[in-house]
Amino acid sequence: MVPQHPAAVDASRLLGRLRQLGAIGREGGDGPTRLAASDAEKAGRDLVAGWFAAAGLEVAVDRIGNLFGIWRGGDPALAPVMVGSHIDTVINAGIFDGCYGVLAGLEVIETMRAAGMAPGRPVVVAAFTNEEGVRFAPDMLGSLVYAGGLALEAGLATVGTDGAVLGAELARIGYAGPHEPGFLRPHAYVELHIEQGPVLDREGVPIGAVENLQGISWQRVTIDGVANHAGTTPMSMRHDAGQAAARVITFLRDRAGRGNVPTVATVGCMAFEPNAINVIPSRATFTVDLRDPDEARLREEEAALARYLVELAEAEGVTISVERLARFEPVIFEGAIVAAVERAAAGRGLRSRRMTSGAGHDAQMMARLCPAAMIFVPSIDGISHNPRERTLDADLVGGANVLLDTVCHLAGIDREDLAS
Amino acid sequence: MVPQHPAAVDASRLLGRLRQLGAIGREGGDGPTRLAASDAEKAGRDLVAGWFAAAGLEVAVDRIGNLFGIWRGGDPALAPVMVGSHIDTVINAGIFDGCYGVLAGLEVIETMRAAGMAPGRPVVVAAFTNEEGVRFAPDMLGSLVYAGGLALEAGLATVGTDGAVLGAELARIGYAGPHEPGFLRPHAYVELHIEQGPVLDREGVPIGAVENLQGISWQRVTIDGVANHAGTTPMSMRHDAGQAAARVITFLRDRAGRGNVPTVATVGCMAFEPNAINVIPSRATFTVDLRDPDEARLREEEAALARYLVELAEAEGVTISVERLARFEPVIFEGAIVAAVERAAAGRGLRSRRMTSGAGHDAQMMARLCPAAMIFVPSIDGISHNPRERTLDADLVGGANVLLDTVCHLAGIDREDLAS
Repeated sequence: MVPQHPAAVDASRLLGRLRQLGAIGREGGDGPTRLAASDAEKAGRDLVAGWFAAAGLEVAVDRIGNLFGIWRGGDPALAPVMVGSHIDTVINAGIFDGCYGVLAGLEVIETMRAAGMAPGRPVVVAAFTNEEGVRFAPDMLGSLVYAGGLALEAGLATVGTDGAVLGAELARIGYAGPHEPGFLRPHAYVELHIEQGPVLDREGVPIGAVENLQGISWQRVTIDGVANHAGTTPMSMRHDAGQAAARVITFLRDRAGRGNVPTVATVGCMAFEPNAINVIPSRATFTVDLRDPDEARLREEEAALARYLVELAEAEGVTISVERLARFEPVIFEGAIVAAVERAAAGRGLRSRRMTSGAGHDAQMMARLCPAAMIFVPSIDGISHNPRERTLDADLVGGANVLLDTVCHLAGIDREDLAS
Repeated sequence: MVPQHPAAVDASRLLGRLRQLGAIGREGGDGPTRLAASDAEKAGRDLVAGWFAAAGLEVAVDRIGNLFGIWRGGDPALAPVMVGSHIDTVINAGIFDGCYGVLAGLEVIETMRAAGMAPGRPVVVAAFTNEEGVRFAPDMLGSLVYAGGLALEAGLATVGTDGAVLGAELARIGYAGPHEPGFLRPHAYVELHIEQGPVLDREGVPIGAVENLQGISWQRVTIDGVANHAGTTPMSMRHDAGQAAARVITFLRDRAGRGNVPTVATVGCMAFEPNAINVIPSRATFTVDLRDPDEARLREEEAALARYLVELAEAEGVTISVERLARFEPVIFEGAIVAAVERAAAGRGLRSRRMTSGAGHDAQMMARLCPAAMIFVPSIDGISHNPRERTLDADLVGGANVLLDTVCHLAGIDREDLAS
């Protein structure tokens, strides 16, 4: 017997709130810009905190500015089920990245309350500070501090790209709260997010049950050659740093693009010096972003690059130095929650596929603290961090209902129970 | 019978003046910075014009600021032999580029006068305006206007990188002269210059008899791909503008570096957009500098690049546009003058080799007006446009003596005559 449908989120309320929040911070772009702890982000926080309060939730803020809406609906002595994401954005962003996870989390709690559900434990929705990392580094700073991966004082002392200090900015906007990060230790954490990649959209699958998250290796490579006149220096006598950099890019592309490996490799930043049309580049500086869901393979990719750089330095007569900028091991999410997501999708009549998160998310930090997983919905053409970021309304609503059913399960309310 | 040595330049006077002129414009660098028509360049002009006058030369300035020292030593009705180069510099330059040709020209005239030589025609030393093209584009502007390749009014209206107008700046520094450019139409033009490349130094040859000058093709290439998340976009779904740019660099290098072709290809400027570590580049903009002494081959290199860009756009799913920035056909210098340079070198007991100029020089513009050629001396390690630009004193003096003998020949005084 197919179980009765237990409840469903209020689609128009959810979509309306996404648009309302997405309208905040529209100076200077087609999309919102709400950098962490800025005036625009304060306006976003005020709106969301107001919705939390209006929904009858207890609003709490911790010392690193993470914002929580707490429904003490079950046994308050038990660890809560936590859902959430972030509401800070990149510059000229889309309206779904992060906000969708927070507002769908709120929607889930309101739906559960309206349906008169009685969860076994509290349910909490969280909006973590500085997930994007545009203003303050590292990204995912709020959840990292929350999970104990970075000392609170270090987090508060972080200096932004504009010279502002995070702690002072949080105090300025009124979001330096009293709670110690980690004050709520969740029973489980589930984050609903747009995919920010093309896989679900290309395959026409509405739900991704995210079982792991790629390891990330960020390096900065500097190649020093010899500046010389572009007209008078025979090709055989050159030590062209730009040309060597180009070899690295094609090496990475050819290697990551081979066969069926899931490795992705990107050179996103590049600078030549002296950057003059008629001077052979003396220096090329560029970044390498390597990702792989398997730690052993990620290490092998790093090692292959390192070996290639040694060969290249020898062959081109250049010197190459490498600086590590960031390194996160892959995260394996909790299999039981991933399975619950798959069941929830099936229960809603939605196709799902297991997948890897290519991007970093607060869930990877929370996975240090409790069992965690993520749910993805399709991003049209994979576009994100861009005003053209889009997800079909039906997919947004479907994802929120899958989150609802997953939270119900984790909070001790199963569809079968409700249907009975 | 070896002919008697006719005369020789005053080495210490020449080297001393090079150092004195090289000391002007030393704010903010190890080397001089004398951008065209700047205060620092005015100081350099004043020094050089003073030396011209002190040597008994008639000092003349034309309307585009070209500075001349005229020795009406022969029949004033005959076209003069002209020597020279420029005294403007790049930013943080060496002291020899350009200045050597002007000061050696002055030295040659003073030596001829001191030796009591009676040339058959006038001898003139020239310092052309804005050869480097750092402040005003195009480079070699003064000699281009002089040779009739650019209208005077257009040259004067040129706006510099700092917004200044060349004509106004020349008036401001007192070098907007009364003469029409081209007022002296030379019998022949000879330019002595440092090689600015490594060939003579590597081969240990002190004199280059420059028989031609490479054609130059400058293009700006813009590749538009699709910005996407570096973590979530599989390699097979990317349209990476930076990666495509890297393919162009390696294509150019592999092609120009093949076999024994004299083609040189350089990508000196490069910019990625949005230039973020975790975003696949949506745009790469770069310059291509192609040079070859043979016009047909230069055209074939341009065509090969164009064909490759079409293939690449198709293969990578990117769009590519190309803008032509500059194009000069190769210049063939006057064989009789080149042979005279070789004979002069041999007469001084100096080895010489015929060679191609990889860089642009005022001589290529003057070649439109009269028979012309160049003499090169070695640049240690090929370094130029840099405070580390160096030529051995012996090579500087040797080159000046070869210029002396070449000018004597062109002015109707041959070594054999003097020795008789």
